[in-house]
Amino acid sequence: MGMGEEAMTGTLYGLGVGPGDPELLTLKAHRILKACPVVAYPAPDTGESFARSIVAEFLSPYQVEIPIVVPMRTERFPAAEVYDKAADEIAAQLDAGRDVAVLCEGDPFFYGSFMYVFERLGGRYSTEIVPGVSSIMASAAAAKRPLAARNDVLTVLPGPLDDDELQARIMISDAVAIMKVGRHLPRIRALIARLGLTGAAAYCERVSLGEEKIVPLESLGAETAPYFSMILIYRGGEEWIRTLAAGGASDAA
Amino acid sequence: MGMGEEAMTGTLYGLGVGPGDPELLTLKAHRILKACPVVAYPAPDTGESFARSIVAEFLSPYQVEIPIVVPMRTERFPAAEVYDKAADEIAAQLDAGRDVAVLCEGDPFFYGSFMYVFERLGGRYSTEIVPGVSSIMASAAAAKRPLAARNDVLTVLPGPLDDDELQARIMISDAVAIMKVGRHLPRIRALIARLGLTGAAAYCERVSLGEEKIVPLESLGAETAPYFSMILIYRGGEEWIRTLAAGGASDAA
Repeated sequence: MGMGEEAMTGTLYGLGVGPGDPELLTLKAHRILKACPVVAYPAPDTGESFARSIVAEFLSPYQVEIPIVVPMRTERFPAAEVYDKAADEIAAQLDAGRDVAVLCEGDPFFYGSFMYVFERLGGRYSTEIVPGVSSIMASAAAAKRPLAARNDVLTVLPGPLDDDELQARIMISDAVAIMKVGRHLPRIRALIARLGLTGAAAYCERVSLGEEKIVPLESLGAETAPYFSMILIYRGGEEWIRTLAAGGASDAA
Repeated sequence: MGMGEEAMTGTLYGLGVGPGDPELLTLKAHRILKACPVVAYPAPDTGESFARSIVAEFLSPYQVEIPIVVPMRTERFPAAEVYDKAADEIAAQLDAGRDVAVLCEGDPFFYGSFMYVFERLGGRYSTEIVPGVSSIMASAAAAKRPLAARNDVLTVLPGPLDDDELQARIMISDAVAIMKVGRHLPRIRALIARLGLTGAAAYCERVSLGEEKIVPLESLGAETAPYFSMILIYRGGEEWIRTLAAGGASDAA
């Protein structure tokens, strides 16, 4: 792509907007978000976009919005057609010389939905990824327990993995973060119980938001978990869980 | 602790200040940092504190500073006495009713030095941890390759682990981030070569700073690595490494 051509097209930004608290946006994401004439974000087929809700107070009515409507109830990877169509809309804005900010909950490249846009447009347009605060760091902060320290090995596991794989990997790790627990909660919870690790696990939901829930896994009721929920396991973390149960994690909230 | 007593003592903040670019501070860390009358941070025995340098432009001459001088050349865990003494200084400020912000590169609870303060004072004072952008997310953003996507398993490994442990864990992971590479670079590099994964690995240093270096491991010279350096390995990531080698990762920097 020649210099002249590049100058005429817009820049594609992948903006990490953090785990939920608008104050956990970075200064950089905040600046770029306010400067971009076009803002795109994943949105469920019903209800509000979580990514958009995080930054709603920073948006202006003069910004063009492109919701990328992905059915959230299915746990399968987003339909290719949805992202093909969104990529076309975003590309049209970039071709017209407008910068586009694509919002992503947490960090864009840590299980982030931005990758579906990036794999379609990253090679064709000037692209910058602005890293964000991930929910795993925010969960550890809220749970008041280091996620990893000294020479700990940390394993990050997607909840949809099957029991055998989860079990093998949990057994060999000092610390584990299980992402995207959602509808897999009963199965994962039973697995952790079979491994004798319930007393070393915490359940984290809506972290950094007003309604955040950080509780010992053993004191969790029979409720269902949202897609953005997480389980942290620390081998030998029983003492921490007792502190958490006694309210130690939220005394300064 | 009674309500009256709590109101008289200051709050201890663990502030993640991100990987290096001051703009990667969160809005929250920025607000708290500016409001705290006392700021503490790890500092080497010679030279500047990296954590302090990240936020230097936001500090005021009216803030009291407490450098926690830790010998950085040794790879052993910080001497207990250094942190005991720092904790006493910080406690004296908290007892006097002043809030104290303890700065931490990256995220406070992700291999962060804040844990040494937290384990000494976290149980005694009102404490809040403000998560930060981690270098692993910032490295992936700069390298323009998702760190983890879909159902990838991500393993985070401290560089000081021995070869057998590193090898076993690298072999069973989709994506690996090796932290704190530092003086272990030659050994880890030789190990990755023996595993046939050099072509799938990137070396990352001073990420998000002006002098950032993100290069394929195979094109790295014989230089030494700073403590805050990282190697990312993606099994099957050879195509990405060719793009990185062709300058693909920094074209929009």
